[in-house]
Amino acid sequence: MPQQRRAQVTRRAIVIAAAEEFDRVGFDATPLSAILRRSGVTKGAFYFHFPSKDAVAAALVRFQAQVWAKIWQRWTSRGLDPLSTAVELVDEVVRILEHDVVVRAGARLAMRDQDTVARWEQLLTGLLRSSAENGLLRPEVDPVAATRVLYATLVGVRVLSASRAIGAAQQTGEIWRLILGGIATADWLRNNPSVPAAAPRPS
Amino acid sequence: MPQQRRAQVTRRAIVIAAAEEFDRVGFDATPLSAILRRSGVTKGAFYFHFPSKDAVAAALVRFQAQVWAKIWQRWTSRGLDPLSTAVELVDEVVRILEHDVVVRAGARLAMRDQDTVARWEQLLTGLLRSSAENGLLRPEVDPVAATRVLYATLVGVRVLSASRAIGAAQQTGEIWRLILGGIATADWLRNNPSVPAAAPRPS
Repeated sequence: MPQQRRAQVTRRAIVIAAAEEFDRVGFDATPLSAILRRSGVTKGAFYFHFPSKDAVAAALVRFQAQVWAKIWQRWTSRGLDPLSTAVELVDEVVRILEHDVVVRAGARLAMRDQDTVARWEQLLTGLLRSSAENGLLRPEVDPVAATRVLYATLVGVRVLSASRAIGAAQQTGEIWRLILGGIATADWLRNNPSVPAAAPRPS
Repeated sequence: MPQQRRAQVTRRAIVIAAAEEFDRVGFDATPLSAILRRSGVTKGAFYFHFPSKDAVAAALVRFQAQVWAKIWQRWTSRGLDPLSTAVELVDEVVRILEHDVVVRAGARLAMRDQDTVARWEQLLTGLLRSSAENGLLRPEVDPVAATRVLYATLVGVRVLSASRAIGAAQQTGEIWRLILGGIATADWLRNNPSVPAAAPRPS
């Protein structure tokens, strides 16, 4: 294996092992030795790539930010209405958090920063505000309040995910069914039959 | 001050100081010295009342369990319909968690036990199941799924409470408005004008 390629493999092994340990017991409870053991990397090799455990955490945070930026870019440039954009975006974020331990560990680290938490909520608020302006929400719905509830629910599902038998993706379906059923216009629900909320509701 | 009364005052000072510190930085990050400093109690006096920091935590957990048992007893014996019972019960729990640091610290400790988390959800599920059986929920609503969403939202609001400008009680109002609006029958909403969700909704 050429040297540069080998270095990449080692770096990747460190990042994945750190993510798995942070995901399992949290950043604070993970000693460097656990990362070394899980990655099979020597201390010397570790320090060649990262000055500290904090530096691995910072790399995880940067990586997840890149993943989200790409997903945001993809869904907001597809020409969907803002409410559908919010639904698809949240569904993809939830799926990735469920299946990708590296992104999940990075996201957990990033969410320790209140500004990151607030920024996600602002992005969603923007989509729901725009949904209201485009007449996709019932007139009595306050998009800011609705986003607060939606966002709290998504955070709660993640917190509870360890103790619940059903997966986050299924729970997100339930959330949308309930919340879209309460905020979207009958027109929007009729026009979006693929959305779980679009089950017929007696009036 | 008679000796027994003085002992009670000291014990109470320890419990309150511990609750305030646990609430501020968490149980793990609170050294015994911080509890002594905040309570103004000597180490000797502390150990007269509690064998360890863990024992104070256990006392806080027992205390919050007693508070919830009383509240549960009060609301379920009032003859309200099960959906109104759920609304009133949750509102009181949220208010107490917001204003009483001793109960809040105890609840936070108790929620580290997955069984406690699951038990709260079971209690709420029971009320919503019974609401469905009594025809208070729209026929297409799955009470178990609706409780999962509701409970996740309540947990999320607590997790986010530090970073949000509005109080938990106001947010609970928003949650009920949105969720009851999505699950309760039009009849129930009409008959419960004091519930925030009962704002008129265009059909």
